Amino acid sequence: MADRYTHDILVTWGDCDPARIVYTGRIPNFCLDAINAFLNDTLGGGWFIQELDHNMGMPFVNMSLDFRAPVTPRHPLRCSVAVARLGTSSVTFRVEGHQDGRLCFEGSFTEVFTVADRFEKQPIPERVRRVLENHLT
Amino acid sequence: MADRYTHDILVTWGDCDPARIVYTGRIPNFCLDAINAFLNDTLGGGWFIQELDHNMGMPFVNMSLDFRAPVTPRHPLRCSVAVARLGTSSVTFRVEGHQDGRLCFEGSFTEVFTVADRFEKQPIPERVRRVLENHLT
Amino acid sequence: MADRYTHDILVTWGDCDPARIVYTGRIPNFCLDAINAFLNDTLGGGWFIQELDHNMGMPFVNMSLDFRAPVTPRHPLRCSVAVARLGTSSVTFRVEGHQDGRLCFEGSFTEVFTVADRFEKQPIPERVRRVLENHLT
Amino acid sequence: MADRYTHDILVTWGDCDPARIVYTGRIPNFCLDAINAFLNDTLGGGWFIQELDHNMGMPFVNMSLDFRAPVTPRHPLRCSVAVARLGTSSVTFRVEGHQDGRLCFEGSFTEVFTVADRFEKQPIPERVRRVLENHLT
Repeated sequence: MADRYTHDILVTWGDCDPARIVYTGRIPNFCLDAINAFLNDTLGGGWFIQELDHNMGMPFVNMSLDFRAPVTPRHPLRCSVAVARLGTSSVTFRVEGHQDGRLCFEGSFTEVFTVADRFEKQPIPERVRRVLENHLT
Repeated sequence: MADRYTHDILVTWGDCDPARIVYTGRIPNFCLDAINAFLNDTLGGGWFIQELDHNMGMPFVNMSLDFRAPVTPRHPLRCSVAVARLGTSSVTFRVEGHQDGRLCFEGSFTEVFTVADRFEKQPIPERVRRVLENHLT
Repeated sequence: MADRYTHDILVTWGDCDPARIVYTGRIPNFCLDAINAFLNDTLGGGWFIQELDHNMGMPFVNMSLDFRAPVTPRHPLRCSVAVARLGTSSVTFRVEGHQDGRLCFEGSFTEVFTVADRFEKQPIPERVRRVLENHLT
Repeated sequence: MADRYTHDILVTWGDCDPARIVYTGRIPNFCLDAINAFLNDTLGGGWFIQELDHNMGMPFVNMSLDFRAPVTPRHPLRCSVAVARLGTSSVTFRVEGHQDGRLCFEGSFTEVFTVADRFEKQPIPERVRRVLENHLT
């Protein structure tokens, strides 16, 4: 099994709201950025490359997030990405965000695989499945 | 019981990704905008006013979303907000997004009530509870 | 001449930073939303409809903004849009943002007109020019 | 003189619009992220730390941007930040974005220095001026 994939984010002033912590609406976007970075680093390209060069779409069908502790710009935000469940034509990612060793949020994100130009579900292509299996928790 | 509260959003080009549909990360933000508009219209002010003028914080502890159909700029996005569960010091909102009569997404969003300047949980204030009860589904 | 076009925005908690005013990076996005709403209301569709249904692209070549006063969620943000300059194949919009009667920001935004699927500049189509002329300041 | 400061951004699917290039409204935000990263790396903290720990505000009074070529997720976006002008209580940053050796956008961003809790202009503090002078172009 591979080490847990991690993606670091520099949290900024603009991510924060008047309570001086990251606005709730930014956090799902951080998670999506972490999943995209995971695909980029393990598959040679994020959603953009998968869709345009491989005709493979990955629309989301569900996301679920628990917010455990505030996120601030005082520490790097370390997002880890792992594969929680691998179906025939879907994948569920587990994303956790830590700052300074503390769990700030954890979530689950499910995507289905499609033939992009036909909007039809497809089984996960072998080149992708091999990579995802390597990151199953 | 009040009618279901609705908040309309003009979806734009910038909300869409290269698949020509709204990017996943925008949708939780649409839901938050709808909840804030609900508070603004029913309590005389959104989170900003509640926090600064009433010293009442409402941090989120959970969100969960199912994506049912793509959202596009071709129709107004009608977001409905209702109260799914009312606890002693927490509320769960149910948000649904419809376009042209079709359900596009539905989600659940839980906030706790705090004394803003002390970051301590508090029971839902009476002026707020009365309004939320009126929107229980 | 038409009345000055206006588009109102409900500013939210999530638009604000820890200084309790709208984050600078949100303001160009408010202006773009106002221009898109102007196109939607005057041409029967914003950039999405123009690009997909009329094969007309409108990429930006310049934006310039002066920030005159903070924007907050305490008042609606009224954005006005007018045409400051109309070239053969470009338009410059002037956008102003007011809250409670006070000018908060003013900016200039220049787009060129293209045949979308060929990325080639084109003269402003007649149906569009007629509308834009009506909003020249 | 220091080397030109650079900050790399991983452009994502969600940054792009249906024309398959980065949406205009994202680009000022990329520039602000680059300026914040510059402050973080040269002053030991971005706007958040400056405001909360040093009581130093840096509100923007102007931004101006020329868009030279589309930005896509195909290459890292390298943003360079330099100081174009240093006044008594203001600084103008010059930000350029390059992809694969090509200039994509260039802009100018002016901030004034304030005593944060009093919203009053102040001369640039010495610890900050020394750093900014080192990055004058």
